Amino acid sequence: MPELRKDPIVGRWVIVATERAARPSDFKLKHESPTESGTCPFDRGREAMTPPEVFAIRPGGTLPNTPGWLTRVVPNRFPALRVEGELKRQGEGIYDRMDGIGAHEVIIETPEHARDLTDLDQADFRNLIRAMTERVNDLARDVRLKYVLVFKNHGRTAGASLRHSHCQLIATPIVPQQVKEEIAGGRRYWDFRERCIFCDMLSQELESGKRVITENEHFVAIAPFASRFAFESWILPRRHFGTFAEMRDNEAAGLADSLRDVLRRMTRLLENPDYNFMVHTAPLSGAAMDYYHFHIEVIPRETTVAGFEWGSGFFINSVPPENAAKYLREVE
Amino acid sequence: MPELRKDPIVGRWVIVATERAARPSDFKLKHESPTESGTCPFDRGREAMTPPEVFAIRPGGTLPNTPGWLTRVVPNRFPALRVEGELKRQGEGIYDRMDGIGAHEVIIETPEHARDLTDLDQADFRNLIRAMTERVNDLARDVRLKYVLVFKNHGRTAGASLRHSHCQLIATPIVPQQVKEEIAGGRRYWDFRERCIFCDMLSQELESGKRVITENEHFVAIAPFASRFAFESWILPRRHFGTFAEMRDNEAAGLADSLRDVLRRMTRLLENPDYNFMVHTAPLSGAAMDYYHFHIEVIPRETTVAGFEWGSGFFINSVPPENAAKYLREVE
Repeated sequence: MPELRKDPIVGRWVIVATERAARPSDFKLKHESPTESGTCPFDRGREAMTPPEVFAIRPGGTLPNTPGWLTRVVPNRFPALRVEGELKRQGEGIYDRMDGIGAHEVIIETPEHARDLTDLDQADFRNLIRAMTERVNDLARDVRLKYVLVFKNHGRTAGASLRHSHCQLIATPIVPQQVKEEIAGGRRYWDFRERCIFCDMLSQELESGKRVITENEHFVAIAPFASRFAFESWILPRRHFGTFAEMRDNEAAGLADSLRDVLRRMTRLLENPDYNFMVHTAPLSGAAMDYYHFHIEVIPRETTVAGFEWGSGFFINSVPPENAAKYLREVE
Repeated sequence: MPELRKDPIVGRWVIVATERAARPSDFKLKHESPTESGTCPFDRGREAMTPPEVFAIRPGGTLPNTPGWLTRVVPNRFPALRVEGELKRQGEGIYDRMDGIGAHEVIIETPEHARDLTDLDQADFRNLIRAMTERVNDLARDVRLKYVLVFKNHGRTAGASLRHSHCQLIATPIVPQQVKEEIAGGRRYWDFRERCIFCDMLSQELESGKRVITENEHFVAIAPFASRFAFESWILPRRHFGTFAEMRDNEAAGLADSLRDVLRRMTRLLENPDYNFMVHTAPLSGAAMDYYHFHIEVIPRETTVAGFEWGSGFFINSVPPENAAKYLREVE
């Protein structure tokens, strides 16, 4: 069972692997490329190589764990957290720990091994957003779980270890520190102005236009004012809502289109950079929040996070967001 | 003039380069190795290639900016922040910005181009700590500056861009978010128990011994209970103090010895990994703090920080700190 441990000073949680703990020599493999083998467990026809699927989009009504799917969600074979068990919160002197309860799933974006996410078409993106939504809403029923983070690692420096294009989700038994900080920030602003800070940000950005990358009926993509990373992009809904569960069908389609648009612009402009995206959604258990606004953050991994950033929480960004937005807007 | 911008939601500051703003094509160079050219500005005899030195250890009493130095501090030629000017705090709608005032210096650890920090001897490490101390104490006199972060990037994945071994320091006109969070955490614990949380942690670690890596008369190195990174190590003074200014001479020697010991163990065990270290010292302007404890954090960069970490602030560590400490203790 993996273990959750809390830093006693800043309250940051860490998942410590205990079963498959690495040895020093395990890190020597770090420079190997992600596997390209013909035995990829995410390929069409190799469904038996993954744990049984928990969700799939099968327009032909084919049987689970057989070909015929377009988007497929399976538990991670080497999960960071485990579904079975109780939290067993306990102390060790001044420290706090609990069992690593949670869920870790893989959203396979396509049955075709060699296609990148940015090669996929509009319908595939809409399937991807639907798969995210279904899984998050399903996991919300587990009262032990407080949060689900959906994210993507594309490329080796962004943390991808399998070439076949996929997203992941990790559900945690506590609300992550970073989400808490965003909520606290949104709440401080709400207490002061009784408005959502994200809504205010969006209306200011739409008025000036200088940091807007692309927009459609339901979503707007901007280069945020205080971007940590060069060409960082945030995708926000025009209507205020906080969770997947509150997103309407036409908004889900708008999100899919906007995400595809942003990733394709970025991939074209920066020539297939490594990147991450993270879906920022409100905690599972809460009611609708006036002060938290659903969004996706996309970060190209073109620069190295070094000692200054790790020590301070400051970031150094060599591309002003106004320039980044202009470059990304002008991509054909 | 670079610009400091504040994220309106979480309060994180970002330094945005404006003068030498990068273009998308600038990132194509990222896979090139750090320069190994014979024209290294940090080499003995090339002192004229750097801005004039602000501090140097010259046992023979040689003139500034000539050979004869052992450790030398110069302003960074391409500083992230600039010394001249005023902060000029201003708003832009809901956003906050100010001019990028601060200092950015390079501590050249040795005049010899090809020696790594871990190749240097005890006296060199003591000179390094002395250079850090002198510079931080000197910058503390500038009332515009609130914090100095001293850090090291070793190896390309840790952000090093020049091969010649060096540390850096960046002085900022605001206390970084991460330092504020540590101080707030220390203060919460103090309010509750009227003891320093770092002191309590240290005494618990010394009693159990299982996460202790190495210790000397004045400093103890541990693998912290909630290590974010595999083989992360913290070096803490036994006596409570918060800043360079409060450190006694024999403690400075103990810190140098402990840092050298930890880095050499890590370098041996992991076969010259890329790494960062960050000196965690209290803000410049404060009086002595009962609840903040000076320390150095060392993080090997063996694993990739991916979407889960960026989205949640959680970390996944595949080496339990008890194992890491044991491996590091056993290095000969």
